[in-house]
Amino acid sequence: MKFSIVLSVQQARFVAVAFKGNLEGNLAKIAGWGYDGVELAIRDPQAVDVEALVDLVAAYGLVVPAIGTGQAWGEERLSYSDPDPAVRRAAIERTKAHIPVARRLDALIIIGLLRGLVQPGVSQAQALDWTVAALAECCTEAAQSGVRIALEPINRYETTLINTVAEGLELIDRVGADNLGLLFDTFHANIEEPSIEDSLLAAGNRLFHVHVADSNRWYPGAGHLDFAPLLDVMARSGYAGFVSGEFMPRPDADTAALRAIAHLRSFAAAAGDRNRRPVG
Amino acid sequence: MKFSIVLSVQQARFVAVAFKGNLEGNLAKIAGWGYDGVELAIRDPQAVDVEALVDLVAAYGLVVPAIGTGQAWGEERLSYSDPDPAVRRAAIERTKAHIPVARRLDALIIIGLLRGLVQPGVSQAQALDWTVAALAECCTEAAQSGVRIALEPINRYETTLINTVAEGLELIDRVGADNLGLLFDTFHANIEEPSIEDSLLAAGNRLFHVHVADSNRWYPGAGHLDFAPLLDVMARSGYAGFVSGEFMPRPDADTAALRAIAHLRSFAAAAGDRNRRPVG
Repeated sequence: MKFSIVLSVQQARFVAVAFKGNLEGNLAKIAGWGYDGVELAIRDPQAVDVEALVDLVAAYGLVVPAIGTGQAWGEERLSYSDPDPAVRRAAIERTKAHIPVARRLDALIIIGLLRGLVQPGVSQAQALDWTVAALAECCTEAAQSGVRIALEPINRYETTLINTVAEGLELIDRVGADNLGLLFDTFHANIEEPSIEDSLLAAGNRLFHVHVADSNRWYPGAGHLDFAPLLDVMARSGYAGFVSGEFMPRPDADTAALRAIAHLRSFAAAAGDRNRRPVG
Repeated sequence: MKFSIVLSVQQARFVAVAFKGNLEGNLAKIAGWGYDGVELAIRDPQAVDVEALVDLVAAYGLVVPAIGTGQAWGEERLSYSDPDPAVRRAAIERTKAHIPVARRLDALIIIGLLRGLVQPGVSQAQALDWTVAALAECCTEAAQSGVRIALEPINRYETTLINTVAEGLELIDRVGADNLGLLFDTFHANIEEPSIEDSLLAAGNRLFHVHVADSNRWYPGAGHLDFAPLLDVMARSGYAGFVSGEFMPRPDADTAALRAIAHLRSFAAAAGDRNRRPVG
């Protein structure tokens, strides 16, 4: 089992000097703690020096399994389901702009809140139709570069568009693209899935990426989720992707990252994982 | 173990004829399914004919363990933490207006979202201070009638004011009233509590009332929560109150209510409950 953790490169936009220092310092710590990879949250790929990023990540022996795109929603309110066609178009173009970066890093592109949420005057069906059309267009272009896209079911409080794996699989069927799959997030699944294990199994070969946080969105081990059967289901179903930590920086970011990898590696070891790395 | 289910008497305000018919029809069904009591959601006690309500509930052999007050927030935005002192005063007076009804029904008063949520320009500390002051005033008046008040920890997405049992107990200490306790809701606990069982135990003799919904807010049995250990903890800790169903009407209200009581009674029976009633 390979583990990564989410890291934002967002401050690059604002403080160019702080960027490199913070990013490199964080990469050094993440590698030192025994993570195999780092999932990068990128608001706008145009603002990122990709070659420098590739070199820096490689220097610490890390890979980038996935790129998170949600900051474009959080900071700019770009979304596939906005009533304004110009905003929808911008969200699609932003997604496409990630493709060369994803190809260079051999990463997949995550679609979380970039699909948006149902806005006043828009029906749920219309918002889903726009989301299907946007993903179809983005997947077609991504396929030309061999890049995959992973749609994340998100709990009901954050959006009504795709809360469960079942809804995600139905939407993937509608899009009809082989390079579209699911990101399974344990925090959201704890709220939405009747059975967390069954939904993980149901994702099958459409399981492209996994986020782990405990039931309270703290690091794995801080809540009541049992990660042993979840990692076991992934191993048995042949999941070859990363298990990526996305959780609140509590009690602080470093402690959370360290405790997460220790907790997860203990189960991965028990599950007979051969690639266990020492936890520092 | 005694079981109840939430029923709104709200339509009384709008359709006086429909009110009695609906209410009586629902009470008949609820009693027929084997529930011991009915928890009543009341927006404004002034709009309710209490003696008629007492007679109607008694006619079906039911009791009223608790009165829910959240509709005053949902429909009128009354809250203890509003920046407008007139709104805070109205929320306090509305709470006090429930006291004679609660006394007559031998019910406790639930404070859920009537505490509100932190509004723009209000600090978390200020909102908590106002909540403490409001509860102190309401508890003092309720104590004179022997009425208890139960504060419900609610998950982070609905309010930042009291998400966990630990935060609830701390607030109860600040209020310093013997008639103030907690309502433990399994749906909220699944998101907020590091251990659901431990938090239930921690509530101790401050556990005044319990809401049950499964992890996905459907009826117990529709999600991944294990209710057996939860009912067992309640039994072992001497909880003498009601376990009250508050869940989404899915696939429909009747089916949900029937499946909930069947699921809960099966565990209560296993826990050696002597008051088991037949499930119809």
